[in-house]
Amino acid sequence: MTYCVGLKLDRGLAFMSDTRTNAGLDSISTFRKMHVWEMPGDRVIVLMSAGNLATTQAVVSLLDERSKAASERKFTLAEAPSMYQVARIVGATVKEVIEDSSPTGQKADAYFNASFILGGQVKGGEPRLFMIYPEGNFIEAGADTPFFQIGETKYGKPIIVRAYDAGMSFAETAKLLMVSFDSTQKSNLSVGLPLDMVFYERGALSITFQKRIGSDDPYYRTISDGWSNALRNAFKSLPDFPMNA
Amino acid sequence: MTYCVGLKLDRGLAFMSDTRTNAGLDSISTFRKMHVWEMPGDRVIVLMSAGNLATTQAVVSLLDERSKAASERKFTLAEAPSMYQVARIVGATVKEVIEDSSPTGQKADAYFNASFILGGQVKGGEPRLFMIYPEGNFIEAGADTPFFQIGETKYGKPIIVRAYDAGMSFAETAKLLMVSFDSTQKSNLSVGLPLDMVFYERGALSITFQKRIGSDDPYYRTISDGWSNALRNAFKSLPDFPMNA
Repeated sequence: MTYCVGLKLDRGLAFMSDTRTNAGLDSISTFRKMHVWEMPGDRVIVLMSAGNLATTQAVVSLLDERSKAASERKFTLAEAPSMYQVARIVGATVKEVIEDSSPTGQKADAYFNASFILGGQVKGGEPRLFMIYPEGNFIEAGADTPFFQIGETKYGKPIIVRAYDAGMSFAETAKLLMVSFDSTQKSNLSVGLPLDMVFYERGALSITFQKRIGSDDPYYRTISDGWSNALRNAFKSLPDFPMNA
Repeated sequence: MTYCVGLKLDRGLAFMSDTRTNAGLDSISTFRKMHVWEMPGDRVIVLMSAGNLATTQAVVSLLDERSKAASERKFTLAEAPSMYQVARIVGATVKEVIEDSSPTGQKADAYFNASFILGGQVKGGEPRLFMIYPEGNFIEAGADTPFFQIGETKYGKPIIVRAYDAGMSFAETAKLLMVSFDSTQKSNLSVGLPLDMVFYERGALSITFQKRIGSDDPYYRTISDGWSNALRNAFKSLPDFPMNA
């Protein structure tokens, strides 16, 4: 499986993805699920993927190839005038790849399915964050729903819902994402380290911070060990049930 | 959906279930999912169910009817000589009901599926806890896996994994169960209050404590509000990510 989170903050965007891919429990590999297109001063586009690896790799390869080579197509990732147009291009490419793979060629076959989180900023626009479905359509994050998750979303959701704050710093956001990923990878073997983390600051038009977090990362270890203790202490701080009341 | 938890403790057994049943989002009802058979001094049997309501009600009705009426069958819940035999009777009844409902009459059809948590003690034996599958087979809780969950299990699992301790008092166990149920019902609309809670003390051979917790229960409100704050404080207690390290 997979776990990816994209967060919209006042100061910009934050992304984190795991890297574990599995075909059965006995076939586990590490693949990058976060892809960054950066044209400093003009645009930054980050795409994270969950689902069938052949589908997601084909989507990324097509997007990449078309943005590099001159083509008869109207727009590429490198030319699209807005993030909305970028989302449309990604959506159309997802639809194209899944239709190509599916035996019927008609509708999104569950087996070849893939979902994407897309975020970034194009010069002249705002930073925007989208979730793209296997059918090629998409939704955008706003103030009410400021984050998207794909893959194994349930274990890591409660802490994001409770601790997210639009005004957070990137340092706090990194902590939040690591707690969320730690809870997930402790509960689901098919989500695993290393993690890819990217921060994008509103208006920068280049990547602000990028790091791969391995299982030996000292900060990750601090969070992973510390969160278990912090949770147990939080639990102890609440009063016991009054059995005789 | 549903959420039920059964825990094995040094001092006995603990059970909690929600009561929400839904057929679509616009058809929500309250049904008891926890059923108790108590023969003081001889046996206590607790059965919690998740899945197709017609199936689970049929299983409980059959078990109940057969344990009251004299029958040609060898054992009933009231006569079985051990919890293992009780689990076999429940498993056989589940299989029978699902086979009856399924159009093919052969294998467990997903649509009519149901899972059960069974716990209790029969005089002369130990308190035991089982999880029973739609196929009628079952597994038993032990020291390594001292609890079972059925239904919407993911949101409420991390806190049980981290805070469970076999030596807990019932008052602490009630707190743990309420935190786990609160996280679940905040994330999944199809899990809802009131909650049914039962504690059974090893060797008592009668129910030790039983209560229905409504949404206006003052202790539940304390836990529900307090846990959000406790989680946020736990999160704040961890160090932020060192962006410049």
